Amino acid sequence: MSYGGYGGYGGPPGPPPYGGAPSGYGGGFTTHVGLPPPPPGADPQLWSYFTTVDHDRSGAITAVELERALVNGDWTPFDLDTVKLLMTIFDVDRSGTIGFNEFVGLWKYIKDWQNVFAHFDRDRSGSIDGHELRNALTQFGYNLSPPILNLLQKKYASETRALGHAAAGINFDRFVRACVVVKQLTDSFRKLDADQDGWIQISYDQFMNTVLSLP
Amino acid sequence: MSYGGYGGYGGPPGPPPYGGAPSGYGGGFTTHVGLPPPPPGADPQLWSYFTTVDHDRSGAITAVELERALVNGDWTPFDLDTVKLLMTIFDVDRSGTIGFNEFVGLWKYIKDWQNVFAHFDRDRSGSIDGHELRNALTQFGYNLSPPILNLLQKKYASETRALGHAAAGINFDRFVRACVVVKQLTDSFRKLDADQDGWIQISYDQFMNTVLSLP
Repeated sequence: MSYGGYGGYGGPPGPPPYGGAPSGYGGGFTTHVGLPPPPPGADPQLWSYFTTVDHDRSGAITAVELERALVNGDWTPFDLDTVKLLMTIFDVDRSGTIGFNEFVGLWKYIKDWQNVFAHFDRDRSGSIDGHELRNALTQFGYNLSPPILNLLQKKYASETRALGHAAAGINFDRFVRACVVVKQLTDSFRKLDADQDGWIQISYDQFMNTVLSLP
Repeated sequence: MSYGGYGGYGGPPGPPPYGGAPSGYGGGFTTHVGLPPPPPGADPQLWSYFTTVDHDRSGAITAVELERALVNGDWTPFDLDTVKLLMTIFDVDRSGTIGFNEFVGLWKYIKDWQNVFAHFDRDRSGSIDGHELRNALTQFGYNLSPPILNLLQKKYASETRALGHAAAGINFDRFVRACVVVKQLTDSFRKLDADQDGWIQISYDQFMNTVLSLP
């Protein structure tokens, strides 16, 4: 059987460095003023963001603090599931919180995704429609069938729509999650598909494990 | 190979009618006063809830209105994904909104889940810990392995925790979603597992379709 149901040459996380997005476009951190001085060697700008997000000045960012700080381009808060995804990736020492050094990575990741989002939001609507989603995933190397793309658009849309209407747009934080989910699912599938025929054998435990590990 | 990796004798949605939960315990609707009179035959109490949730008095509840009305026991809002799950189940005519008749079903569903939640929240903490989650799923007929239960608890926990610490508790809306996901995944798996040996063969498209259909 010929193969080609899926591809992928890296893709997100670690999105390609598409450029040109204005700072804060798509989604990111809200910022305020009034903060302690940076430790030696720290980037003063990033330190200022870090101390703003670290609301109780404990020296570490909790999931709740991160959730409070992250907003989409339309000022809606990030979903808890996206916040937990970010904590999982960047809480390298598994302390349950994000220290300053971990924050530097998190910051870069969000900036990179802002650029990806801006690149694919062709009509500058602030959300990703079905056409834009297909373009993004195709460029990431995924060759998903139209029904799967429709499901994905519907699942990550920020609103519900009547039957027969195109699914609503996907905002920044849900777009990141959608792309990470496609990558993780495809990677998991490919690992099990030793003969690359597009079919796998999977046990109930493996199946549950794969799905429940998704963000 | 002997089978028994999963069971299930119905389970949620359509949770068993455990009783005794005080009204509003766990999570549900916020209510206000001042509303139009009920149409003939409508339950006046439910009509009052409906008109309160129908913020713009359009006669139908949108996802945004539902999201605004639904709160957990700790007053945190429901996740958008749980709101969309409810819309998917109860928007029977696929209008994209919830009419009064649809709302009657939605209301009952949430009341039933409140009772389930109260029943399994043995320590009355307002959230479901790992032990309580295992009890709930076992009673629903699912026989999940400890690693899968841990993954589930971590995925639906309302907070992140340091490595080595037990995962945080699951609040009402995420508990509903966790149970529906386990049921949907197990049903999908069982349908493909014709010889009931705990293993399935699945194509990339089927696999993606199964996972992206989850709430």
